[in-house]
Amino acid sequence: MFAIAPATGKANLSASQLKLLAGKARWIFRVGEAGFPTIPTIVITRAAWDELQAERSRRDIRLRTHWVACLFRLVQADGKPPLLAVRTSAASHNGGLMPARTGIAAPAAPEDAVDPARPLARAIKEAFESYGFSGGGWGGARQEEDRARQIVLVQAVAEGETELFLTRNATTGALGPAAVDGYQLPLLPESVNALIALLDAKAGRHMACLVAVNRGRVQFLSARPVQVNAGAEVEAAVDRVERKVWIPQNAVTRVDASRLVQMLHPRLKSPEGISPIAMGLGVSPGAASGVIVFNAEDAARMRARGNHCILVVNETGPSDIEGMKAATGILTARGGMTSHAGVIARITGKPCVAGARTLSVNAADMVCRIGDREFRAGDRLTIDGTDGAVYVGALPLAQPQIGGAIGKLLGWSDASRTIAVRTNAETIDAVQTALSFGAQGIGLARSEHMFFSPERLAALRRMILSENEEARSKAIAGLVDYQTGDYSTLFAVMQGRPVNVRLFDPPLHEFLPRNDEEIEDTAASLGVAVRALRLRLERIAEVNPMLGHRGVRLAITYPEILQMQLQAVLAGARAASENQAEPVAVEVMVPFVSTATEVAWVRERAMSILDNSGLLRSDRVRFSIGAMLELPRACLRAGDIASMVDFISFGTNDLTQTTFGISRDDAPTFLAAYQRKGIYERDPFVSIDEKGVGEMIEIAVARGRAANPGLKIGICGEHAGDPASLRFFAGLGIDYVSCAPYRVPVARLTLAQASA
Amino acid sequence: MFAIAPATGKANLSASQLKLLAGKARWIFRVGEAGFPTIPTIVITRAAWDELQAERSRRDIRLRTHWVACLFRLVQADGKPPLLAVRTSAASHNGGLMPARTGIAAPAAPEDAVDPARPLARAIKEAFESYGFSGGGWGGARQEEDRARQIVLVQAVAEGETELFLTRNATTGALGPAAVDGYQLPLLPESVNALIALLDAKAGRHMACLVAVNRGRVQFLSARPVQVNAGAEVEAAVDRVERKVWIPQNAVTRVDASRLVQMLHPRLKSPEGISPIAMGLGVSPGAASGVIVFNAEDAARMRARGNHCILVVNETGPSDIEGMKAATGILTARGGMTSHAGVIARITGKPCVAGARTLSVNAADMVCRIGDREFRAGDRLTIDGTDGAVYVGALPLAQPQIGGAIGKLLGWSDASRTIAVRTNAETIDAVQTALSFGAQGIGLARSEHMFFSPERLAALRRMILSENEEARSKAIAGLVDYQTGDYSTLFAVMQGRPVNVRLFDPPLHEFLPRNDEEIEDTAASLGVAVRALRLRLERIAEVNPMLGHRGVRLAITYPEILQMQLQAVLAGARAASENQAEPVAVEVMVPFVSTATEVAWVRERAMSILDNSGLLRSDRVRFSIGAMLELPRACLRAGDIASMVDFISFGTNDLTQTTFGISRDDAPTFLAAYQRKGIYERDPFVSIDEKGVGEMIEIAVARGRAANPGLKIGICGEHAGDPASLRFFAGLGIDYVSCAPYRVPVARLTLAQASA
Repeated sequence: MFAIAPATGKANLSASQLKLLAGKARWIFRVGEAGFPTIPTIVITRAAWDELQAERSRRDIRLRTHWVACLFRLVQADGKPPLLAVRTSAASHNGGLMPARTGIAAPAAPEDAVDPARPLARAIKEAFESYGFSGGGWGGARQEEDRARQIVLVQAVAEGETELFLTRNATTGALGPAAVDGYQLPLLPESVNALIALLDAKAGRHMACLVAVNRGRVQFLSARPVQVNAGAEVEAAVDRVERKVWIPQNAVTRVDASRLVQMLHPRLKSPEGISPIAMGLGVSPGAASGVIVFNAEDAARMRARGNHCILVVNETGPSDIEGMKAATGILTARGGMTSHAGVIARITGKPCVAGARTLSVNAADMVCRIGDREFRAGDRLTIDGTDGAVYVGALPLAQPQIGGAIGKLLGWSDASRTIAVRTNAETIDAVQTALSFGAQGIGLARSEHMFFSPERLAALRRMILSENEEARSKAIAGLVDYQTGDYSTLFAVMQGRPVNVRLFDPPLHEFLPRNDEEIEDTAASLGVAVRALRLRLERIAEVNPMLGHRGVRLAITYPEILQMQLQAVLAGARAASENQAEPVAVEVMVPFVSTATEVAWVRERAMSILDNSGLLRSDRVRFSIGAMLELPRACLRAGDIASMVDFISFGTNDLTQTTFGISRDDAPTFLAAYQRKGIYERDPFVSIDEKGVGEMIEIAVARGRAANPGLKIGICGEHAGDPASLRFFAGLGIDYVSCAPYRVPVARLTLAQASA
Repeated sequence: MFAIAPATGKANLSASQLKLLAGKARWIFRVGEAGFPTIPTIVITRAAWDELQAERSRRDIRLRTHWVACLFRLVQADGKPPLLAVRTSAASHNGGLMPARTGIAAPAAPEDAVDPARPLARAIKEAFESYGFSGGGWGGARQEEDRARQIVLVQAVAEGETELFLTRNATTGALGPAAVDGYQLPLLPESVNALIALLDAKAGRHMACLVAVNRGRVQFLSARPVQVNAGAEVEAAVDRVERKVWIPQNAVTRVDASRLVQMLHPRLKSPEGISPIAMGLGVSPGAASGVIVFNAEDAARMRARGNHCILVVNETGPSDIEGMKAATGILTARGGMTSHAGVIARITGKPCVAGARTLSVNAADMVCRIGDREFRAGDRLTIDGTDGAVYVGALPLAQPQIGGAIGKLLGWSDASRTIAVRTNAETIDAVQTALSFGAQGIGLARSEHMFFSPERLAALRRMILSENEEARSKAIAGLVDYQTGDYSTLFAVMQGRPVNVRLFDPPLHEFLPRNDEEIEDTAASLGVAVRALRLRLERIAEVNPMLGHRGVRLAITYPEILQMQLQAVLAGARAASENQAEPVAVEVMVPFVSTATEVAWVRERAMSILDNSGLLRSDRVRFSIGAMLELPRACLRAGDIASMVDFISFGTNDLTQTTFGISRDDAPTFLAAYQRKGIYERDPFVSIDEKGVGEMIEIAVARGRAANPGLKIGICGEHAGDPASLRFFAGLGIDYVSCAPYRVPVARLTLAQASA
């Protein structure tokens, strides 16, 4: 035991004592050392406490003498026995810890200071006991050592009022005393500002601070960091730079990149004129639309298929957390700002409307009522977590803008970043969002996604369902014009930034009619009999479409599709190049390759089409060709493949599916059990599996670079928007990552942190 | 040009001339050198011939002088100008080669010997031209060199009759003159036997031999090897050993292991009392039963799903070869023994009935008639390629026995083999077949295959379809007794040989009812409403069942299945061990693992069940646990996995599917185009892909051995029955392979050859 804030003078701590300063103790020591009036405080470790107790049975008093002397030092200033307080001081916050005990009378005799039947020793004993044993029994010696180092604080009780406040505003991030959630902001003397500036500079984050105010005099009691929303965190970080407390690099490295996503919520485009069907509380900001689901499993299934959904429940509880993470937005009938739904939604950054009183949910029957209307699973809703409105149907959403503090932070981050950030996008809306977020190019334009409008889908279906080359060629002819226009617009918007067009890779089952009604409509639009269409659908149905007739396999079996697509890309590039200063940079990517011969086959044809187009000799279009590595075999053969391409890009979604042998669509049936039983440390579809999929990528990067030193290497799976994965990718020596538009800021910041 | 069989004395060839002896030239030289009377023969290379032609325009005569002198040497014996014959002499047979030209008058003047307008030079020129250019234009310099070394033979024409015969019988392999297919066996003098023995010893294979017989005197003209059925080949090889021409090792290394399969045909068990519906010609032996298919694509699809099918066509042509390879048997309406169907069927070893006159096929409508009965795709037939009978339905087949020559050959092969051969089997019939073929254990007992009988399938479906743990536990209880009995019998039959039981790994979709009728039956047998069953089926349907809720994932999500299965295995082992001298050797294999934690999880539970069973301390049961590596990630993490198991075994089928990202079920839509366009050198599901899947296995073997030097390593995918794959596996340092029962002899021989 030792004083970190003695009643008089400075503390005199050994190096080993300094190492024990965890949690509040650290802040008390640092504030005291900085010269701010601080309440006298003693630190006692569990090891010391256990030894004090052991001494009692040995009738030894050496340590007790030291302990009592320490207690005496608390009152050295005026000599009268003070009231004492006992506080825990954990390194990280833990809900089960003992709340501070105050007003404990100082022990009258030395024995009283160690006797657990007496108030002071009892409080200390209970404080240690509240730490419990952390973790699951695997720590061994290390855990024993950590336990011995747990500390409890014994403080003098200050005179005057005890006041609690934040060092910065929890919403705006502005410096100055601010109210703690659920409390009034107390009246504080001017001198508290010095304490706030001191703590803010030393901690570099929002702190909840406890002081005693006695006749205008402030005395520091303790402080602990608090989690605030990402916006406030970013504002505070930028403010510290502007106050010269930090250099920009500090701000870049200290902000948690994964929390940026919270700041980039979509909002309703123009809710005016549209009436909400219900109002609740907007407990987590942002708007979301999607189909209704009633349970976590369905939410996970929707997410796995890339669809948006709104989780609709009466109220949420711990068993709903997975479902909330998987949902795009959450709507509850009960609860408010501090309800489980609100807290978890804000932590996970999901838009949430809570306490919509006219909503009632019958989860068993998969039906809910809002007012007098009934909704079933699959019906669409839009919610606005900013104002609490609920709308029928999927309303158009507008994208958030980057500016102010986050703009400055990202600007600073670009200075230290060495890996480019592109985006996975193909629609003009998505591309413009990504550009506004700082995307430096398109790393993955999924050409088949350009066919989602009804009349195009019909054309696409006609092609997929064609029985022979002639019918297919006819169907394709109908697609060239659409495609040429699409590409020309895309290249124009990108103004010379690289655009990676992935060759057609339709997961057939997603594009074909499924239910009776769709089949009848499709048959009518194709002019074939329903029965004939059903037969054709049966013939092309695949047992495992994920591993079926897709990617480069389509280009090789139906070269006319490849031909059409390349012609459209080249015509689009030519058209765009005529209206802009910068040359168009086209990268054609061959998907789902497993052998170098596949790449060679496509490359030969592509080059011949390029040659005939006359663009080979143009300086207005820069054309390159590459392979998408998303199969284990492609990674192993990356040397052969690299020697005949300009770039490779890893599709980490499919690479994870094949490396693990997991269909992402089907994973929900066992992934939850896997995480519960600790089989997977984390979901491999969220954060890259470094030891398996990661090694596959490492092997491929090494072999690819060895075979082709000029090779450009990118990563375009969804992992490219996940901070943990990005940190891993940053160590691989790659050239760029490409992520969803909303993740571009996350990637910019994370990669800057990784380069720092 | 030089004489390899001069009119008098021995040939005197330089080393470089000896190297030119390809095809017939080699046999003429070797027979002549051995002292058997041989027709005088000159070899002329294309290089020499081209130079002779070039000389003519240069008015140079040096080479021509040599050429004419050679021609003179043909007649050195009696000095009268003979009639000449011109023959090609290719290293390998080629249908387009010029047939022998005989009776050409010797040139009257030196110029006539090189003038292409004259008969001799014209025949030589045409012989060279008939070689054409081989290959697809990638050979470059090497191809040019090969072309220059092509040779043509000029022979004196012998007096007397020219006779053709085989050195051994094409069916029995017996030594002695035998008829060539389609010809009568000529009457030959006794002295031909010396030639036959000479050729058989030198060539070590069946030879077609051409001699001139003139008043009882035999003169050797030429010979070439002929392909005969595998049975004759094996008989001949064993006969050579018994005649002391070869040592056993020669027989082991010289027999083509892949052709052994032909000898191991099933036959009809007891066709007595069952009348054939039609008779054709039995043109390729063995019986086969399966569902009717009408085209190669459907045959490939059936094969990919592991189902037997009979390809039924009017007649076959080159476009049917892939379908014939994929089919279990072939039935044609037209053609005979030497028809395309017959030839290809015998080469590929498929049972074939040709020329069934009452059959007519309407391939477009997918229907055929046999007599007055109509059959559609999916109906079942049985054919007997030995006697030409065709039966309705799937008749029971009996397995071939190993004995006689093949038994001797395999016995010799075991002496030099270091890698054990096990079998993939779980039914008593299949296991007994495998044991009769020399299997040393079971390397893969697919526990779910024990449920194919109707009442068991109902129990299995009840388990799969159960909605919760209670219902599942009840369904499982009904399975334990079946399983215990199965395992007890299996262990008893194996008499202490190792038995690898793979934990339950059902590809759900194969076990569930599909059409309306099946669904109604299943609903009735489970006592649930049809509508409820349909809903349940919809809920558990998987998008990609191959990558879904299977393998170890089932054991972890439904531990009660694991518990039931282990208890049944252990009870079976205990029961068997009480009636036999050898301890029961049980290996429990965990399928479809991707992480070491999965293995640890199952291992912990298995050990606790084993502990409770009391068998842990028994010396009557040897229990070991291992992992099936069939996913790329499992190969990369083989070190972690190996450290907690006794063995690993590679499932090369699924490893090929995931490494390539190919669903075998769906591959037929593009694999044919891939092979046609040369994308794949060979079907990776037939012969292991050494550069991709093979490297995965190499990585895993190295990491596994490093982590656990006592690790036992096996391979249990279908590749373990393919000679090319087996040669690769033999180089990996593995302990055993496990293949289908019929492939056990192939594996025994191939692995012996690889160790030689």
